[in-house]
Amino acid sequence: MFFVLQMAISNIRYGEGVTKEVGMDLQNLGAKRVCLMTDRNLSQLPPVDAVLNSLTKSGINFQMYDNVRVEPTDQSFLDAIEFAKKGEFDAYVAVGGGSVIDTCKAANLYASSPTSDFLDYVNAPIGKGKAVTVPLKPLIAVPTTAGTGSETTGVAIFDFKELKVKTGIASRAIKPTLGIIDPLHTLSMPERIVANSGFDVLCHALESYTPLPYKMRSPCPSNPINRPAYQGSNPISDVWALHALRIVAKYLKRAIRNPEDREARANMHLASAFAGIGFGNAGVHLCHGMSYPISGLVKTYKPKDYNVDHSLVPHGLSVVLTSPAVFAFTAQVHPERHLEAAEILGADIRTARIKDAGLILADTLRKFLFDLNVDDGLAAIGYSKADIPALVKGTLPQERVTKLSPRPQTEEDLSALFEASMKLY
Amino acid sequence: MFFVLQMAISNIRYGEGVTKEVGMDLQNLGAKRVCLMTDRNLSQLPPVDAVLNSLTKSGINFQMYDNVRVEPTDQSFLDAIEFAKKGEFDAYVAVGGGSVIDTCKAANLYASSPTSDFLDYVNAPIGKGKAVTVPLKPLIAVPTTAGTGSETTGVAIFDFKELKVKTGIASRAIKPTLGIIDPLHTLSMPERIVANSGFDVLCHALESYTPLPYKMRSPCPSNPINRPAYQGSNPISDVWALHALRIVAKYLKRAIRNPEDREARANMHLASAFAGIGFGNAGVHLCHGMSYPISGLVKTYKPKDYNVDHSLVPHGLSVVLTSPAVFAFTAQVHPERHLEAAEILGADIRTARIKDAGLILADTLRKFLFDLNVDDGLAAIGYSKADIPALVKGTLPQERVTKLSPRPQTEEDLSALFEASMKLY
Repeated sequence: MFFVLQMAISNIRYGEGVTKEVGMDLQNLGAKRVCLMTDRNLSQLPPVDAVLNSLTKSGINFQMYDNVRVEPTDQSFLDAIEFAKKGEFDAYVAVGGGSVIDTCKAANLYASSPTSDFLDYVNAPIGKGKAVTVPLKPLIAVPTTAGTGSETTGVAIFDFKELKVKTGIASRAIKPTLGIIDPLHTLSMPERIVANSGFDVLCHALESYTPLPYKMRSPCPSNPINRPAYQGSNPISDVWALHALRIVAKYLKRAIRNPEDREARANMHLASAFAGIGFGNAGVHLCHGMSYPISGLVKTYKPKDYNVDHSLVPHGLSVVLTSPAVFAFTAQVHPERHLEAAEILGADIRTARIKDAGLILADTLRKFLFDLNVDDGLAAIGYSKADIPALVKGTLPQERVTKLSPRPQTEEDLSALFEASMKLY
Repeated sequence: MFFVLQMAISNIRYGEGVTKEVGMDLQNLGAKRVCLMTDRNLSQLPPVDAVLNSLTKSGINFQMYDNVRVEPTDQSFLDAIEFAKKGEFDAYVAVGGGSVIDTCKAANLYASSPTSDFLDYVNAPIGKGKAVTVPLKPLIAVPTTAGTGSETTGVAIFDFKELKVKTGIASRAIKPTLGIIDPLHTLSMPERIVANSGFDVLCHALESYTPLPYKMRSPCPSNPINRPAYQGSNPISDVWALHALRIVAKYLKRAIRNPEDREARANMHLASAFAGIGFGNAGVHLCHGMSYPISGLVKTYKPKDYNVDHSLVPHGLSVVLTSPAVFAFTAQVHPERHLEAAEILGADIRTARIKDAGLILADTLRKFLFDLNVDDGLAAIGYSKADIPALVKGTLPQERVTKLSPRPQTEEDLSALFEASMKLY
């Protein structure tokens, strides 16, 4: 038995205007039939324009699929997969937030493995969690939000409608070939999208800095292909998590408040990729595990600034609302890491006691969210105490991430965490 | 015109005993004919044994090439390329230091591009520096020294005998598919090999933290495929360079002095990969540029602990001997970075003046080398003032790296740097 750390770190390219190179990249890849994937809002906006111009200029033959659902479902994944299978594409370009990039990963995977059943690659225990051994086509991801980090990870998340839970596909094999990080795209993001996607970066950094260490995971898989993408905290992801957290501390508020603050928005765009490299290898834990039912069980909440025709809790919001309760709960395992995170986020810890680390980080997060006008807890987005059993039940199948929590949790613990997250301020 | 940062970061796997997985990796890749490349010394040692056992256990069909030259030449590259072409391999495993891994990269490249002339891919101005557009076979690198970082980079260096200079091939396309970093392999390294390979890590970190920033490079290539692997300092490689430097400061002396210090040797093995990710994207500059003629013009120097039948200056030694002079010269451009590096290496900078940054880093390096019984400068390895014109002449073609120096240098500057490096203490 031995402990192993495996890092699969995406290629990224960063620069203002760099999107205009995507046509040349596809030429260099020898692509003859390209699938351009986006969502309907974005299809009218500058990032997709920039990609279309570049494809046209390079004479790339492509078909556009703009039917991606914001917060995708198994049905919306299947629709995109169908399109990909029919198109027989030899390369993909995804232009959008995590929803678009994740949908494109799934489309590429199942079109490359046409005889597979949809559940084959879905995470166990919901799906079979099979290892991906088929070769995929190149996928270039052009993120338009600063949050998901999906351009650097091997994860694709969707709502499984039948079970009313979020789950996903996780394999290094579906990681994009290249992430094109063009901060110009973030300049057109509305305020709440900047905020909510920024909260996703914040939680990626905090959760990937505090999970179970990789040396404490067991059992060790006997074949390296079965090693999970999410490995637990490790000396490489630690570097990225802390680096991303420092950028969030410095730039997130500025990026939210001032759309013209190019420095802040560019730095958040890069932080999103950095945090992606961190959590894409270390994993996330309770905030993400609990967020899936918070999104999946949404009632009538319609967030400001999201132009969609269905209720939704934006992913970043669903993640951050439980963060004060979660880190107060987990701090007893690595209190020094929780205190360090609080200090990076602005807490004065000179006279702090290590045993208060969790409370200090929770208070720091509450203040951070209050300053940014975040909804006051789960109650403010439509949940009440009566919903807690369903929220707990929706969290239980998320063991791919919840088992990465440094502190094991019972159903009672989860109930208490949801209850403590009903009201924040 | 816009500034672009492109990061191509290798996949690495780290853990004691992890070498035993290589057979399964090749199975998972579907490899049917594998080339195992190493050198004659290593072919008798535990790292190659571990790989052979793993290949046999997984029933992998392979041929072994153990004719790699330590500090390879164009001739030794061509010999390995010939072997690779004949073997029609579908995967490669390189077990060794930088010499082995670099040779294997070249063998994979030219066997995948059989009609190319050798000079086609060699760096300009010596070769044509053509972009690599052919697909290569998977290459798994198993480093046995903690220095080169070659398992993470797209660079392969060799001595061009006719011109008596070191040069190389640099392309993201030749980067290994996977680096297997097994710290068990470093336990059998003799003292001077630990020291010299550690100096390579030290200089990778220092040089990749101080080159010309990527935003000051010009001209910008019009097609991304022509963007150089070495881009100049940037916010991502900075993270890796500083992280590697901190590990070197903490563990290099311990790793050299005590072969049983598993913690120190394991950390240096990981630092080598981290520094590789840093310099593989940011580049190196004058220490490396000047090191190539120092190695290439070797007279009779035979280092302790290297079991070879020809004179050689180990790469790490050829790099580090000029480091005090180089950083005293470059510090005027980014003095704060030089001072920060000196502090990480143990200097007390509380009362330091920023204008003394270069001298402080130079003194810190001299003390570091003195403590480790390093030869007292170029004079101690056989050079005299009379050799300086030839050393300068051998540096001039290294513009791929020397142009990354933050401070431009004339031939007179190079002469002065070599002269200042004749004696260190």
